[in-house]
Amino acid sequence: MDAIFKVDPWCIQETGLHRDQMRYAESVMSIGNGHMGMRGSFEETYSGDHLAGNYLAGVWVPEKTEEARQFPPYTGKAADFLNTISLRIRIDKEEVDLAEEQVEMFTRTLDMKRGVLVREFTISRDDGMVNVWFERFVSAVRPELLAIRCRVSADYPCRITLLPAVTAEESDEEEPLWEFSDADEDGDISYITAVTRENAFGVPRFTVSAAMGVIPFGEVVKDRTDADENEIVRKLSFDFVPGDSVGCDKFVCVATSRDHNEGEILNSARSGITAALNEGFEPLIREHAREWGRRWEKADMVIDGDEQAQQAVRFSLFQLFSTYYGEDERLNIGANGFTGGGAVSWETEAFCLPVYMAAAGRSAAQNLLRYRWLHLAEAGQNAEALKLPGVLFPAKTFNGAECHEEQRIAAEGIHRNNAAAWAVFNYTRYTGDRTYLETYGIDVLTGIARFWMGRVHYSERKKQYMIHGVTGPNEYECNVSNNWYTNRMTAWELAYTADELEKVSGEKRAELGVTAEEIARMREISRCMYLPCDADRKIFEQQETYFDRERMTAAQVPLSDRPIARNWSRDRIFRSCLIEQADTLLGLYFLEHLTDREMLRRNFDFYEPVTVHESPLSLGVHSILAAHLGYSAQAKTLFDRMARLDLDNLGGDTADGLHLYALAGNWLAVVQGFAGMRIKDVLSFEPQLPESWQSLSFRLGYRGRLLSIEMNREGSRVIRLSGEPLEIELFGEKVLI
Amino acid sequence: MDAIFKVDPWCIQETGLHRDQMRYAESVMSIGNGHMGMRGSFEETYSGDHLAGNYLAGVWVPEKTEEARQFPPYTGKAADFLNTISLRIRIDKEEVDLAEEQVEMFTRTLDMKRGVLVREFTISRDDGMVNVWFERFVSAVRPELLAIRCRVSADYPCRITLLPAVTAEESDEEEPLWEFSDADEDGDISYITAVTRENAFGVPRFTVSAAMGVIPFGEVVKDRTDADENEIVRKLSFDFVPGDSVGCDKFVCVATSRDHNEGEILNSARSGITAALNEGFEPLIREHAREWGRRWEKADMVIDGDEQAQQAVRFSLFQLFSTYYGEDERLNIGANGFTGGGAVSWETEAFCLPVYMAAAGRSAAQNLLRYRWLHLAEAGQNAEALKLPGVLFPAKTFNGAECHEEQRIAAEGIHRNNAAAWAVFNYTRYTGDRTYLETYGIDVLTGIARFWMGRVHYSERKKQYMIHGVTGPNEYECNVSNNWYTNRMTAWELAYTADELEKVSGEKRAELGVTAEEIARMREISRCMYLPCDADRKIFEQQETYFDRERMTAAQVPLSDRPIARNWSRDRIFRSCLIEQADTLLGLYFLEHLTDREMLRRNFDFYEPVTVHESPLSLGVHSILAAHLGYSAQAKTLFDRMARLDLDNLGGDTADGLHLYALAGNWLAVVQGFAGMRIKDVLSFEPQLPESWQSLSFRLGYRGRLLSIEMNREGSRVIRLSGEPLEIELFGEKVLI
Repeated sequence: MDAIFKVDPWCIQETGLHRDQMRYAESVMSIGNGHMGMRGSFEETYSGDHLAGNYLAGVWVPEKTEEARQFPPYTGKAADFLNTISLRIRIDKEEVDLAEEQVEMFTRTLDMKRGVLVREFTISRDDGMVNVWFERFVSAVRPELLAIRCRVSADYPCRITLLPAVTAEESDEEEPLWEFSDADEDGDISYITAVTRENAFGVPRFTVSAAMGVIPFGEVVKDRTDADENEIVRKLSFDFVPGDSVGCDKFVCVATSRDHNEGEILNSARSGITAALNEGFEPLIREHAREWGRRWEKADMVIDGDEQAQQAVRFSLFQLFSTYYGEDERLNIGANGFTGGGAVSWETEAFCLPVYMAAAGRSAAQNLLRYRWLHLAEAGQNAEALKLPGVLFPAKTFNGAECHEEQRIAAEGIHRNNAAAWAVFNYTRYTGDRTYLETYGIDVLTGIARFWMGRVHYSERKKQYMIHGVTGPNEYECNVSNNWYTNRMTAWELAYTADELEKVSGEKRAELGVTAEEIARMREISRCMYLPCDADRKIFEQQETYFDRERMTAAQVPLSDRPIARNWSRDRIFRSCLIEQADTLLGLYFLEHLTDREMLRRNFDFYEPVTVHESPLSLGVHSILAAHLGYSAQAKTLFDRMARLDLDNLGGDTADGLHLYALAGNWLAVVQGFAGMRIKDVLSFEPQLPESWQSLSFRLGYRGRLLSIEMNREGSRVIRLSGEPLEIELFGEKVLI
Repeated sequence: MDAIFKVDPWCIQETGLHRDQMRYAESVMSIGNGHMGMRGSFEETYSGDHLAGNYLAGVWVPEKTEEARQFPPYTGKAADFLNTISLRIRIDKEEVDLAEEQVEMFTRTLDMKRGVLVREFTISRDDGMVNVWFERFVSAVRPELLAIRCRVSADYPCRITLLPAVTAEESDEEEPLWEFSDADEDGDISYITAVTRENAFGVPRFTVSAAMGVIPFGEVVKDRTDADENEIVRKLSFDFVPGDSVGCDKFVCVATSRDHNEGEILNSARSGITAALNEGFEPLIREHAREWGRRWEKADMVIDGDEQAQQAVRFSLFQLFSTYYGEDERLNIGANGFTGGGAVSWETEAFCLPVYMAAAGRSAAQNLLRYRWLHLAEAGQNAEALKLPGVLFPAKTFNGAECHEEQRIAAEGIHRNNAAAWAVFNYTRYTGDRTYLETYGIDVLTGIARFWMGRVHYSERKKQYMIHGVTGPNEYECNVSNNWYTNRMTAWELAYTADELEKVSGEKRAELGVTAEEIARMREISRCMYLPCDADRKIFEQQETYFDRERMTAAQVPLSDRPIARNWSRDRIFRSCLIEQADTLLGLYFLEHLTDREMLRRNFDFYEPVTVHESPLSLGVHSILAAHLGYSAQAKTLFDRMARLDLDNLGGDTADGLHLYALAGNWLAVVQGFAGMRIKDVLSFEPQLPESWQSLSFRLGYRGRLLSIEMNREGSRVIRLSGEPLEIELFGEKVLI
């Protein structure tokens, strides 16, 4: 599929209708506000191939697995809610449907600066031309509010009918996800209430109410409201005369039992609509755009000399912030956000947290961390299901319980536990704030350490501790012995936990029931962990027996075989030396403070050539490491393979949703890679801009300051925009700003 | 579940109705004749829990897999056919249904000597007692014929109605397996024709016709025949007076498109019925029993002093021969035979072939071998699907194409290829006949060798050939590197194939396109195969890293955790040192001619204690090895855990069908274990009877002779019953018989 979007610093614009790439465009054009979001589908009828998707954060249904399994017993899916954007249009009784119309002009524009999706099109009918204009946003200020403005005009007199609605779409599910319990109208407001379907797993059901209010624009000649279980709809008819313009402003408020007591859900939705009808569309969109302005002020990135990259980094921040802006500790960043309804994985700690710490603020970052703390009980149940002590954070989850569809990953991909531990370390390192660690983080660290103490075993042969039967972040392996990444990160986790347990208060230790013996055992296992390594070449071995594989490079794979995930059988992938992402390098990235540059270089030189990067996550890490090693051109090449992954549909699967964790990788590659930001004893930068970049500047929140970092061919500077003076390091030199 | 069958040398008898163990009893009471067979279900209505199953050899339907998979694209199931045994009974219009009746007496008896299932029961009704008697067999002489005799009497005058029928049962399938195309009656014979359902995989559909004829017994007062798509049924009514007896003989002939052209199927079924009606039940059952007599004459085993074992070994031979008696090279022995409808696995070559060579004759054995030769093309497609050369015989199959439901086994359990090669070796060794090897076997050997030459890789580190990413016969592992069994058997296969390729004619080599270079490469890989081993202890390592596992023994697993397959999570099983069956020992068993006893002892002493024997197949092999090592008591214990596996439902899953490969293991344990039979330069025996056994005698076909082997406390002798004189070895001494 070809890229279809215009390169522009602030907008994603599709010019001309791409009927055969509708799903890809819908994914990219998604908007959200943390509470809810939806793909960039059309408000009016569209009978062509597309994928509508309206999601509510944290609202999901469990699904039974295909076969009865011990662990996990169920998977889950985000509960695609009602079509809240629906606004059908009839011209002289004939439905507007761009799958069928003769389209003269079409633009769809995601305005990232303001967080607004705008669409305009002109169609040619037998009697003349009709022009339609839509503008929609989900308020960044009022989480429950969706607003849509629609304007229609024509060059001939006609009857125009608009049908703003909230509709239960035909579902392709075997069992509908929702049971509709109530729908009615009441003055200007109509509403509909639904409950997620029953389940056999004891997962609580969600009640959701949507209320709708509409302000007509132009003289309405017929106005009628209907409400039934499948739809609430208002029908507005206009006798249109050329030169005029008619339309409506539609508001939908969606409130759920996640935020309100059962009796209050509908009230919240209704009062939201009452307020919106009183205030009107324009003040609401101004308020919304102002909030996006504030976000950009704290986080914007400007790249001069590379328009493609400029658009890509803003798109990354826009979609991340649309998914989550740190307000709600019960929520987190799903793999596809509101663009495909994915669950939450360990990559949120690994890749998203650093973005939020710097670009959204400490409280947002803390909420991301707290998510795991809040799920300690469920993580304990996950471990218990595997007959192990401590906690096992889920590979995929909606509520803390494991929901991954592959047993192999759910039970063997246990490395993920260490990402939650590393996040505590990383947060503490970045913020300098030990309060979180001492209050909550230590609980997480201890639970994870206890899991490992139960999960490792001692090899009498090697006289070392080992971890057998795992799958590393490189999922092109399965059930291996001693994955270096897993073992190394575990050794680190145990040592770090032991250190911190000795620093926290005696009360905390007592509360956790930690003894000196337990801490000693953590240290013992950490010290005696087996780490497979080629002693001659001083290269870490991805897992035992890996170095016996036949050596080939990713470059040797014929184009017709790529991606190998779709063209090679699984057994062949499992036994080949090629890897999805180099987890050994990932470990060196996380533990860079314990890694010398030559060790990193040896491993990078070995692993990068065998990495097929079919998980886009690895490109960011490899780009950062390449930059760190001074491989500037390679760093830029790796960045380019990732930066526009979704914008240009490089993986061919953007249709199913955006890759949010990879989007976070873009930010990391710019800030940690090209700007060379690190936290040593102080905040430090070692910039090396790609050749084509004239300049790079970005904002950073750091320990109570807002900083502006500006780098160009002549040099670099860091400006303190707010907060106390600060010592930083630039190219190894300490500077006070 | 408790054992429910009386211990008896020739019969399996259930006394008293066991409504809660109906499925287990049905499995054990199965009968078959190679062409068709059915579980021991009731002819009359039974509304209680049970599992009917009527199977036709080689008649199956493919099923799509749960998720789209590269390999295999479909699985399959035996197409449970119409209920051919149906014969409902009404007394004064009230249906006889043992789930509801007051049962005064009930016996169900499988007469293994004659191959007949007999059932008798008395029920108490308000007006008095009713006695019913059934006898049924599937003819060992006329493969398409099923015959049932029914007699009913009462101690009060009543109207007795019998409804012999062939019925389409309610199916619990989502899609019915059969489409019914025709049903009608024609004079005394009614018939029904059905076709297996359509499929999307290009698997041919099967057409099956069943014809039914009935001979009433007693004076019929009403006689009527109905035929529709769901049933052909005859309704016979009798005015019964006490002292009388009424009933009928029912014959069903089932003919399929496997054996006949489309136009001839029904004719074959009809003419079979015409013949049966002319000849009558008694001559037919005599003819059938005579054939079973002939089978027992060639194969019977007598154990004096252990009635349990006596019954068990006859049951093994009976169920094996009921499933397959070597007549049809297109068929083979499914894992569950006609008792649960299983597909064919590699164990047929490993465990069943030796039984058939000795107890059913060379032609039967050759047909078993030819099955794989006939499927060379499909096996080539299996290999091609994995982008590998040569052939890959299926893990499970109906027609040569892979049908295994687990990708892990289908693509990684490739050791199975070597069982087909070993079978060629074993057949040649036992029969002394090189014709099969030279004509067909060499094709199989070469195809397998070519698969391995493509599948191994060279480790630069170890300078040896390796096989990564496999699952051995011990399926409590997954995706391991260098499974010793797989590597060792492959090294053997390549060397053996190279040897035989040099011995066959130049024409054959040319036909196979084999060059001297190719043979040299086979030898090179064979010689340089990596075989993991603990050099100090001289114990072979099941797979690389296995010796690093935490050591525990099977005896240490708490009872509440057994079987671990059902009580432990998969990841725990995968990383534990416990094994389902010791595949290292299996390799030493297959290659005993290359194994010295001390090597075997070291490995047995190491592996037997960690083997949980949750695959019953291993018990036979371990028992044989224990006997060989002189561990007599242990050999008997292992034998006892397996011998009555199905008879006493020891695994708790006999309800789903018998374990035919384990049944073959019983014979092997007696003949190769306790009688110590081997083929060295001559046929040899080294008997060591279990303490409780007074004597053991059995028949053996060997190179044109029929031998009787008799062993007791005093000594052993081998009697030549037919054929030329023969030199054998008894306790190391050569004897001419």
